[in-house]
Amino acid sequence: MSIREELISQADAAKKAARKLAKAGTNEKNKALNLIADKLLERKDEILKSNEKDMHQGRENDLSRALLDRLQLTEARIKGMAQGLREVASQDDPIGEVPEMWKRPNGLQIGKIRVPLGVIGIIYEARPNVTVDVAGLCLKSGNTVILRGGSNAFNSNQILTNIIQDGLRESGLPIECVQLISTTDRKAVDILFTLNDYLDVLIPRGGAGLIQKVVNESKVPVIETGVGNCHVYVNKDADLTKAKKITFNAKYSRPAVCNSAESLLVDQEIAEEFLPEMARIFAESNVELRGCERTRKIVPKIKEAVEEDYSAEYLDYIMSVKIVEDYQEAVEHIYKYGTKHSEAIVTENYTTARSFLDDIDAAAVYVNASTRFTDGGEFGLGAETGISTQKLHARGPMGLKELTTTKYIIMGDGQIRE
Amino acid sequence: MSIREELISQADAAKKAARKLAKAGTNEKNKALNLIADKLLERKDEILKSNEKDMHQGRENDLSRALLDRLQLTEARIKGMAQGLREVASQDDPIGEVPEMWKRPNGLQIGKIRVPLGVIGIIYEARPNVTVDVAGLCLKSGNTVILRGGSNAFNSNQILTNIIQDGLRESGLPIECVQLISTTDRKAVDILFTLNDYLDVLIPRGGAGLIQKVVNESKVPVIETGVGNCHVYVNKDADLTKAKKITFNAKYSRPAVCNSAESLLVDQEIAEEFLPEMARIFAESNVELRGCERTRKIVPKIKEAVEEDYSAEYLDYIMSVKIVEDYQEAVEHIYKYGTKHSEAIVTENYTTARSFLDDIDAAAVYVNASTRFTDGGEFGLGAETGISTQKLHARGPMGLKELTTTKYIIMGDGQIRE
Repeated sequence: MSIREELISQADAAKKAARKLAKAGTNEKNKALNLIADKLLERKDEILKSNEKDMHQGRENDLSRALLDRLQLTEARIKGMAQGLREVASQDDPIGEVPEMWKRPNGLQIGKIRVPLGVIGIIYEARPNVTVDVAGLCLKSGNTVILRGGSNAFNSNQILTNIIQDGLRESGLPIECVQLISTTDRKAVDILFTLNDYLDVLIPRGGAGLIQKVVNESKVPVIETGVGNCHVYVNKDADLTKAKKITFNAKYSRPAVCNSAESLLVDQEIAEEFLPEMARIFAESNVELRGCERTRKIVPKIKEAVEEDYSAEYLDYIMSVKIVEDYQEAVEHIYKYGTKHSEAIVTENYTTARSFLDDIDAAAVYVNASTRFTDGGEFGLGAETGISTQKLHARGPMGLKELTTTKYIIMGDGQIRE
Repeated sequence: MSIREELISQADAAKKAARKLAKAGTNEKNKALNLIADKLLERKDEILKSNEKDMHQGRENDLSRALLDRLQLTEARIKGMAQGLREVASQDDPIGEVPEMWKRPNGLQIGKIRVPLGVIGIIYEARPNVTVDVAGLCLKSGNTVILRGGSNAFNSNQILTNIIQDGLRESGLPIECVQLISTTDRKAVDILFTLNDYLDVLIPRGGAGLIQKVVNESKVPVIETGVGNCHVYVNKDADLTKAKKITFNAKYSRPAVCNSAESLLVDQEIAEEFLPEMARIFAESNVELRGCERTRKIVPKIKEAVEEDYSAEYLDYIMSVKIVEDYQEAVEHIYKYGTKHSEAIVTENYTTARSFLDDIDAAAVYVNASTRFTDGGEFGLGAETGISTQKLHARGPMGLKELTTTKYIIMGDGQIRE
């Protein structure tokens, strides 16, 4: 079989399985999730062995320490994956919910009922835990899934999918509910793009390059995730104590994730009061600042920011700093360089706060809080499939509900249209 | 300027105007809508004159009678367009609605607020009334729009856009809120597909060929609309009086629209009782039936249905008929040939009705009512931009709300993430 034939055969099986899974009851799905969690723990030695193969190859391929860390599984991480599945099992089932129903003057009763999307394709990095997380979320929301994990995690993903399918089989659900693409050939991704007769949505997770490729080439509808060039804007009316705490947290608490801030904007009126202390705090934690000319007059020790710095998603202990004339310049700067992910203002001014919430077009707009909260768990949505930075269908953290659609159901007693 | 340069310049202007329009108040938008309605009536002679140019060319180009009818504007139709705008003005403004807001344990107040999508591209047939309808819906929902109407309606669309822009100017809104592509060159459509830095969504209305082209080629996110191969399934437990009424209405009331039924499925158990009378009713109204072998044993006068008939969207006074063994065969037939638009069962059996609502994956699933109700107005949503047959973002008739997205707003008092 060619790669294309094999993928079509998988996609076709996923589509068939989707019809069965859509009708599975909540108890049935939860039973499968919990069973898979049990099996992950039972078979942890097999998992660690396969993961060690990936780690060995990764070290030979000179993967960075950060990448190796994401790739590695430990007993604790396997426990974490199992726990994640149990948490998904404990969440409300979105399927079957009727968010709206009304009656028309002619007596027709019309409602919207929540149903699965169908078949979901996910392309992701070499992070084996994503395999289990995503499989769990798709299963609970009644969707079948075709997984394309980073090739560096191929052995880990194979054993994990194997275990998931065992759990499905034992619970009486089709094993094709969760399938891994069985080749690391990059062609497979290009073929996925063309399977719009089978896949209902494709979700790319990972770097900007991958996401752009999917958006440009896919015939399957896409949900874009993740690129975050997020700003903290310290307004002239800010409480500077809050501003320091929020700015530091937005950058330092976990710089390699999409909701961390990359850029600090400071109103000129308070720059001389705010920046020296802020720079000192960052210097103590070895965060590199790159400032505009005016910033460097106040904090001369830091590097110069060039144009590219304002567009950069560093994902590192680096932050650009720019002094702005006023609120309007800050808003324009964010409009120009932002990626519509998460944007924060620090201000005590009521009118300025309201304006910012209105003026900024992003998935999450904050007043007086760290951008790091943009996360399904932190928002109270439960688990998360990714953070959508597009406007169609889902925007911001995607929980179970974002993996569903609705259909209209119309109940009549013989109505016809005049 | 090349076509590409001109389109980019229009798209850029639309994007800039979108920022202003997003902040326009409801009163401002309603004022513009009503003003445009006034102007359409005042300038009806100009409109009719431009339309006559299109009609003249259309006749020279041998357009069918149906196409010429859709192209033609009359004083009554102009009044209808003006009335449509006033109705959109009278509808609730979706923008600014906060459908959900909650408080987290850490005190963060998190809400979703409804905002415009931004810039919408619409590609549609040679129906000048769509120009006004769509412009009105986009305006009310705070979106700017780039219109690409069928080339046969070019003169009509130009004068209508001209009048709309006059109304915008007079109400103090940017005239770039509504722009018509100023060429009938087909290249313009291909260029639209690439403008994902400017357009937030592209909505193709029209035939299956256009829709497939857009889905296959567009980098801009697409909402698919309209192709409807809809079924009426007369179950063995149907009230046959209702069944006849519903089947006739679903086909005959307006065959050229997407929610009309193309195919009739009949349980074998009641076929001999139901079909002769049903065929007689259709014959009286000159509806052509094309039946399966078993159907033709009962109603010998009708033509034979071949495989293509079951896939056909006739949009005409033609209907295919198939006798099915049982409920399960009906569901499988719909799964195989349906386009996930509107599907109806006629039955008095409670359990069968519930199963059908569950089993059928379509934008609108009916029990004991005509598929012809799939329409924004009939559902009580107000006006309609089209009927989505995809699962992402919007499914079924799209009203004002479906032209919006949400963003998260998060209000804190210094919260940081641990």
